[in-house]
Amino acid sequence: MSWTSRLEEKTKQVESVLNQYLPKEEGFQKTVISAMNYSFLAGGKRLRPMLMQETYRLFGGNGKVIEPFMAAQEMIHTYSLVHDDLPAMDNDEYRRGRKTTHIVYGEGMAILAGDGLLNFAYETACKAFLIESNERVIEALQVLAAKAGIYGMIGGQTADVEGEDLPPEKVTNELLLFIHTNKTAALIQSSMMIGAILAGAGKEQIQSIEKIAYNVGVAFQIQDDILDVTSTTEVLGKPVGSDEKNHKVTYVSLNGLETSKKDVERLSKEALSLLEKLPGENPFLVELITSLITREK
Amino acid sequence: MSWTSRLEEKTKQVESVLNQYLPKEEGFQKTVISAMNYSFLAGGKRLRPMLMQETYRLFGGNGKVIEPFMAAQEMIHTYSLVHDDLPAMDNDEYRRGRKTTHIVYGEGMAILAGDGLLNFAYETACKAFLIESNERVIEALQVLAAKAGIYGMIGGQTADVEGEDLPPEKVTNELLLFIHTNKTAALIQSSMMIGAILAGAGKEQIQSIEKIAYNVGVAFQIQDDILDVTSTTEVLGKPVGSDEKNHKVTYVSLNGLETSKKDVERLSKEALSLLEKLPGENPFLVELITSLITREK
Repeated sequence: MSWTSRLEEKTKQVESVLNQYLPKEEGFQKTVISAMNYSFLAGGKRLRPMLMQETYRLFGGNGKVIEPFMAAQEMIHTYSLVHDDLPAMDNDEYRRGRKTTHIVYGEGMAILAGDGLLNFAYETACKAFLIESNERVIEALQVLAAKAGIYGMIGGQTADVEGEDLPPEKVTNELLLFIHTNKTAALIQSSMMIGAILAGAGKEQIQSIEKIAYNVGVAFQIQDDILDVTSTTEVLGKPVGSDEKNHKVTYVSLNGLETSKKDVERLSKEALSLLEKLPGENPFLVELITSLITREK
Repeated sequence: MSWTSRLEEKTKQVESVLNQYLPKEEGFQKTVISAMNYSFLAGGKRLRPMLMQETYRLFGGNGKVIEPFMAAQEMIHTYSLVHDDLPAMDNDEYRRGRKTTHIVYGEGMAILAGDGLLNFAYETACKAFLIESNERVIEALQVLAAKAGIYGMIGGQTADVEGEDLPPEKVTNELLLFIHTNKTAALIQSSMMIGAILAGAGKEQIQSIEKIAYNVGVAFQIQDDILDVTSTTEVLGKPVGSDEKNHKVTYVSLNGLETSKKDVERLSKEALSLLEKLPGENPFLVELITSLITREK
């Protein structure tokens, strides 16, 4: 079976877990729930819950306690997209070929749907206590919240929004790395860390996973900047050269193409080497991570 | 000392607890943190954390585990105001005489500040595990999340937003009560329930507290509708008669003034009688609840 087919198969398996946690569309609050589910069911590869589950398996986890966390993480990811797409933010009318939530449900309801998803993520994660009530679940909850907030994803999002209005000379490597680390890597970190924590990994192993996920997230974003320069619209499925056209400061414009490629390679090698050193084996996880950082589209 | 002075004194005491949990305005994400703190520090009586702390004391609670929950609840209340004030929602430029968050920081940053406050509420509540790590804290966290979400505050908010666009004959008592129960009473319920839970109250006592808080929240809202008809602009400090002018269906327009007044009285009496039956005494809490439901402004 090709990698694409195997990945699709995994996505379906992950979705069958996630879908159990969706709220029923009923009651006087039916509209906000429909808007939440519309956003949640817009598709995507479900990478974050997939990474969470596969890391859990790497450390020998085989229980159901991971499942509410998988759903919670995807709800957090989804709410961030719903709010990102709003007119006051990126003002996007389409995402993955479907109309965005505020286009279908109106702006007010999209704000409420995002809030609903974020809050329901914590309600859902709390369901893990019904399966196992122990220190691991508490730690997983702390990591979920920390990486999603102002010292994680929201922090990165803030810097990204503000960065767009800065004069180019103010956009430093330090700022770009802050954005990549927090906007993208933070949720990959919490996904993998929660998998490790719930499977009972040790402190050093969790730190190693945090580092691997950091490298994966940052390499993924630098690769994004590289492909905008080196790929073609046909391969990428979206217009290339848009960063240069928009005078956007990127990792590539700051560091050059060669250094950027070397950095992706260094981050990738380090991630895979750290992963190899961990006890347990999960060939699918290795392949998934490799595909994320060496992607051509 | 007058009731107003004593209440102000309590508000100050509660604020000295809350302020310890505010994030520092620093780093590349400084702007969103400033916007969060601007919103949080806009004032108000801090009723929800006050009710939480006083209910905790009623049941003999005297530890610090309540404090992160007090801050978390006020952050949830604050985020709901920030998002409510947005142009796509109520479009308010002022709140308590100060410019609203999106007027000062822009719409995008106000959306992020609301998200930041909601997420930070859960990060903050999780800090309670560092003080006491037990089933009570887990239960308190579950109640916090449940009452704030689609089966609580967000659910009520959704029905309220949609209710505004309904033809008057569609706005039933059932819908109005749903809105009051969820939009207003839900956070009063979680506040008082968390106080009881963390102090180690029994299951029946917690149910009793939930009922008391329900009555307080709903009576408070009906009283709001009554005062719009019976009070004067001078006493209320805001224009009266606005509901009738806006053809707004209210509890009073549906049930008449006499029935509405009787319902407030019934709900209040029941709440105070249930409170009296509980073990423990907290005269301040009795006075606070009385002031909320018999208020003249």
